Amino acid sequence: MSDPTDQPLVIFTPSGKRGRVAPGTSVLAAARQLGVDLDSVCGGRGICSKCQVTPSYGEFAKHGVTVREGALSDWNAVEQRYDDKRGLPKGRRLGCQACVMGDVVLDVPPESQVHRQVIRKSADTRPMVMDPATRLFFVEVAEPDMHEPSGDFERLSAALAEQWEVTGLTADPSFLRKLQGALRKGGWQVTVAVYRDHTGAAPHALEIWPGLHEGGLFGLAIDLGSTTIAAHLTDLETGEVKAASGLMNPQIRFGEDLMSRVSYVMMNPGGEKELTEAVRGALADLAGALAEEAGIDPSLIVEAVVVCNPVMHHLLLGIDPTELGQAPFALAVSGALSLPASDLDLTTINPRARAYLLPCIAGHVGADAAAVSLATAPELSEELMLVIDVGTNAEILLGDRTRVLACSSPTGPAFEGAQISSGQRAAPGAIERVEIDPATKEPRFRVIGSDLWSDDPGFAAAIAQTGVTGICGSGIIEAVAEMRMAGLLDPSGLIGSAEQTGTPRSQPEGRTHAYLIHDGSAEGGPRITVTQGDIRAIQLAKSALYAGARLLMDERGADRVDRVVLAGAFGAHISPKHAMVLGMIPDAPLDHVSSAGNAAGTGARMALCSVAARRQVEEGVTKITKIETAIAPRFQEHFVAANAIPHAVDAFPELSKIVDLPAVSFNSGDGASGGRRRKRR
Amino acid sequence: MSDPTDQPLVIFTPSGKRGRVAPGTSVLAAARQLGVDLDSVCGGRGICSKCQVTPSYGEFAKHGVTVREGALSDWNAVEQRYDDKRGLPKGRRLGCQACVMGDVVLDVPPESQVHRQVIRKSADTRPMVMDPATRLFFVEVAEPDMHEPSGDFERLSAALAEQWEVTGLTADPSFLRKLQGALRKGGWQVTVAVYRDHTGAAPHALEIWPGLHEGGLFGLAIDLGSTTIAAHLTDLETGEVKAASGLMNPQIRFGEDLMSRVSYVMMNPGGEKELTEAVRGALADLAGALAEEAGIDPSLIVEAVVVCNPVMHHLLLGIDPTELGQAPFALAVSGALSLPASDLDLTTINPRARAYLLPCIAGHVGADAAAVSLATAPELSEELMLVIDVGTNAEILLGDRTRVLACSSPTGPAFEGAQISSGQRAAPGAIERVEIDPATKEPRFRVIGSDLWSDDPGFAAAIAQTGVTGICGSGIIEAVAEMRMAGLLDPSGLIGSAEQTGTPRSQPEGRTHAYLIHDGSAEGGPRITVTQGDIRAIQLAKSALYAGARLLMDERGADRVDRVVLAGAFGAHISPKHAMVLGMIPDAPLDHVSSAGNAAGTGARMALCSVAARRQVEEGVTKITKIETAIAPRFQEHFVAANAIPHAVDAFPELSKIVDLPAVSFNSGDGASGGRRRKRR
Repeated sequence: MSDPTDQPLVIFTPSGKRGRVAPGTSVLAAARQLGVDLDSVCGGRGICSKCQVTPSYGEFAKHGVTVREGALSDWNAVEQRYDDKRGLPKGRRLGCQACVMGDVVLDVPPESQVHRQVIRKSADTRPMVMDPATRLFFVEVAEPDMHEPSGDFERLSAALAEQWEVTGLTADPSFLRKLQGALRKGGWQVTVAVYRDHTGAAPHALEIWPGLHEGGLFGLAIDLGSTTIAAHLTDLETGEVKAASGLMNPQIRFGEDLMSRVSYVMMNPGGEKELTEAVRGALADLAGALAEEAGIDPSLIVEAVVVCNPVMHHLLLGIDPTELGQAPFALAVSGALSLPASDLDLTTINPRARAYLLPCIAGHVGADAAAVSLATAPELSEELMLVIDVGTNAEILLGDRTRVLACSSPTGPAFEGAQISSGQRAAPGAIERVEIDPATKEPRFRVIGSDLWSDDPGFAAAIAQTGVTGICGSGIIEAVAEMRMAGLLDPSGLIGSAEQTGTPRSQPEGRTHAYLIHDGSAEGGPRITVTQGDIRAIQLAKSALYAGARLLMDERGADRVDRVVLAGAFGAHISPKHAMVLGMIPDAPLDHVSSAGNAAGTGARMALCSVAARRQVEEGVTKITKIETAIAPRFQEHFVAANAIPHAVDAFPELSKIVDLPAVSFNSGDGASGGRRRKRR
Repeated sequence: MSDPTDQPLVIFTPSGKRGRVAPGTSVLAAARQLGVDLDSVCGGRGICSKCQVTPSYGEFAKHGVTVREGALSDWNAVEQRYDDKRGLPKGRRLGCQACVMGDVVLDVPPESQVHRQVIRKSADTRPMVMDPATRLFFVEVAEPDMHEPSGDFERLSAALAEQWEVTGLTADPSFLRKLQGALRKGGWQVTVAVYRDHTGAAPHALEIWPGLHEGGLFGLAIDLGSTTIAAHLTDLETGEVKAASGLMNPQIRFGEDLMSRVSYVMMNPGGEKELTEAVRGALADLAGALAEEAGIDPSLIVEAVVVCNPVMHHLLLGIDPTELGQAPFALAVSGALSLPASDLDLTTINPRARAYLLPCIAGHVGADAAAVSLATAPELSEELMLVIDVGTNAEILLGDRTRVLACSSPTGPAFEGAQISSGQRAAPGAIERVEIDPATKEPRFRVIGSDLWSDDPGFAAAIAQTGVTGICGSGIIEAVAEMRMAGLLDPSGLIGSAEQTGTPRSQPEGRTHAYLIHDGSAEGGPRITVTQGDIRAIQLAKSALYAGARLLMDERGADRVDRVVLAGAFGAHISPKHAMVLGMIPDAPLDHVSSAGNAAGTGARMALCSVAARRQVEEGVTKITKIETAIAPRFQEHFVAANAIPHAVDAFPELSKIVDLPAVSFNSGDGASGGRRRKRR
């Protein structure tokens, strides 16, 4: 052998990994020698093109190397065949065919990396790197030999061990059933989808295709909420979302909120079976619809990851959730679960597909909260970060590098427009934004489906189709906050009369008042008001949310937080300023309040695309300190104090810098909460 | 601590293990310290009584120890409570309660050993030691704590790890569904059945009971034959067979022999589904019937082990067996399989029960042959041992400590009474034994259902119920061999005429002759004869068997074998002398020919009761040299030479010592096989 220093130097970008290899070494082999992440499904046979690289020529002072023509071996017949058949981008070479002949700089484009980083739109804190449990392997399998008899499966297994270092393959009978046909049809060349997770369990064969399979592999990231079920059909090679869809959770017919579903089961022994069937049926339908939308064969969906709250978690698994309805709120199982998707009756995808359920944090803090923590990574934050996933139950995380705490708080459905007199779900026609002029006390608003404000010209025409039908969650929050800022509402939450506020829009309703936002009765539409009852409902919800956050801050010994992250589909629509005026969230500089979008869904997609993420969340939840709001003595105290708008006790210095809240009081001495508040002070 | 030599000496019998322990150490703890196999399900709580020992008192010169009164602590309240409630045999102590106070000799009775040896009736070579995959564990589980929330399953898993060193428990959703109820009903004390096999897979929870489960655990050992299915319901704690039963393989309606079933699938695409459903349905029925017969709850059956030939193996798994019908006879899978029993639609037992299929040796040598090798252990034999499992296909093993060879040979169904003019299955009324007087050429016989010979007084009355209905497999073998010994049949297999043999029982039938054994026509019964066609059918079958054995002997370079073991239900009924006269088996001293009974069934039961046996057979089959008779050039040659009775070429010196075969020849020059034989010589 020649002196190693005579060997050509190979430098890979963007990793910067470098080293000398024997002349004539293929780029793919060089990458493996040097630990460079270069993909290959066909194992170097020049047919999958996953190992494409771009050589650079010329002088590279930075690398201290000059790359001459001829640094790589000539374009060969295999590359020509591939280029003729499918086309190779200009400047690209097949890493398994091009051999290193001289010093060379090789760029590995993102699509040639196994562990490519996925670019995401939302400003999430944790990067997402592809590291899926299920991968494709192209193998050449030895033909059967009467003199050395062995099963086709044993020879497939040996080929995977030799060609891919995948050892100890296991398979179900239904895979074995397809094996012999595929091997013979493929002329003893097949592509196998192998599932290997982070648990140390043996690799498991999920699917087989004759020859090289080029149809891709897909997974479902499912965010199973009490009210809605959302799923993202995701490409397991690129992380790309191919289709997204959602539907109502059909369990709603057994009860709007979780506790009423638990009650249904308690009142109707065996009722959990109906609930389980309902949600499983919905998941199967959703999976089928997504495959159709993306135009892919449903059998290419080989994994599903589910995040959900503990009650949905148990009902999906067919476990009676009764224990979750009463102290000590014991989960049947809290750890992550990996199981055949068929165990969840997910029959519309590959029959051997796997399902993964993220771990639950506690009896009230579910796999959805675990997914939020995976997506937002408070445990990596230098600043003290408060993450709130707003929904029927709010999941709350507080923490930084040193420690993370979690709880859930029963906000109820008011933030979703339920239990509000004119409330409705976010849908076209719903008021989603409100402004009230502090001088005239006149409102203007926007409805979902139009970008125009109600006082803009053309508004009536723009919304003619839907009309103004009600007010949704973000609309009611803005409306209440604007009423407070306009002096229509006092800190105790009392709406002033027309006399007290100086506007005829404040109209008597029994012994209290309501504020009229829109009167559609002339056009046969509804009168949309914010009633005293609506205010009380919002106060209850926001008090619960704030009290939960405050409880975690107490535990942490913190008076303030550095950052507030609002998660949940709804979180994306909340105006931080209005949320703070309402006292939903603790005081913080407004530019430190951000939305993480549907963080639970993002966490599900991360766990779908990466076994490292699964390990991360499984380890992560064990380190989270769980606070049970139901038994915390101070919760009730915080809850009462948080009833005022924004708060009876806590100062909001950052809010005061930008908003001047009128010091009004409409207490008429009838024992309304304003009076109580003062007494408590 | 005191000087260890001051500590009491404990000697356990029958193991002979001995050592010193601190005074006050419980016998159970002492056993664990010294590596003595002492059972316990309740973990030392004095409720399961599995750890019973019998202390001996007095002087033991052999052990060099004197055991005084007071060597064990006094009978305590826990023992008293157990004795009051269930009764403790006289002289016994509970090992978890009795503490060592002085030197003591303790006998561990077989029922207190986990790895107890099972006493079997048949003279099998390999001992059977209990080492089941599924065991019961009694645990106390921590109650849920809101301040440290964790799932009930996680706390069960922790309890198993702490109390039994069973770590990393896994479970299906259907187990999790039962968990919370059982824990609460049992007051946080439960018994769990945990499956742990030899593959390194994580322990798997199969069943749970509140409190201490005392109903036992059971498994099925299933011998799935082409014609019959036999199963033994076995106690997984003691190895005891609680019930045994069999039924016809319902696949018979698709074809009597395997190849006709393979043809059915080839001619009817998808037909394997029907065959699979038929056999799975039969297994489920059989399992249900056995549980009923034994009077046990079918959910206590938590394991099933299946042995069968390769075609049945594939059909049971739902795999198209077409490849097994044509060279190179490729198995879809040859290794052992461990899978949920529900994957085999074994729905009449515990829904989480496990199934284990022994490995196949080759495309023609199945898991049944592997089971025979497990039961007869040729690889441990000092002598060269030939094992023949006689059935529609014969499985043949030849070997000793140095090497084992295997093949299968297509004997056809003649040995089972099929394709024989008066043939029938072994059932009451069938002739099973035959003797022919060499002087008078007169026969006498016995039929199944009576111990009397046909010339004994009272025979007619004894068999009045059934009559004489036909001749079964062992009967036809004896008849043909007796005809040869009596000079009614020449070495070429030709039956002599009445003139040539001097008996009117030799009667013309076309151009050949038949020998009349019994004429029942006067009583309306059948005339039972052995025809020339019957002789030819037996010659084909025995030639195939002998040629297979001879092929293995060639490969081994052996002219003779030391021992012949006949396996299979049928093997138990074959007379070694007659088999040798016929030339079914190679020459050997008659007292070296034995029956191993239903060795395949025994092997199945061994694998059911012991994971060590599973490991043994899995390793064993990889070391067996497989010989494919279909492609061995010498097979045909051996087959032709074996056509003569006993053989055209091979000497039978041991046989000659006890039997003098008449040197007759009935060849009338019409080209019968006798003539051909001479030409080949």
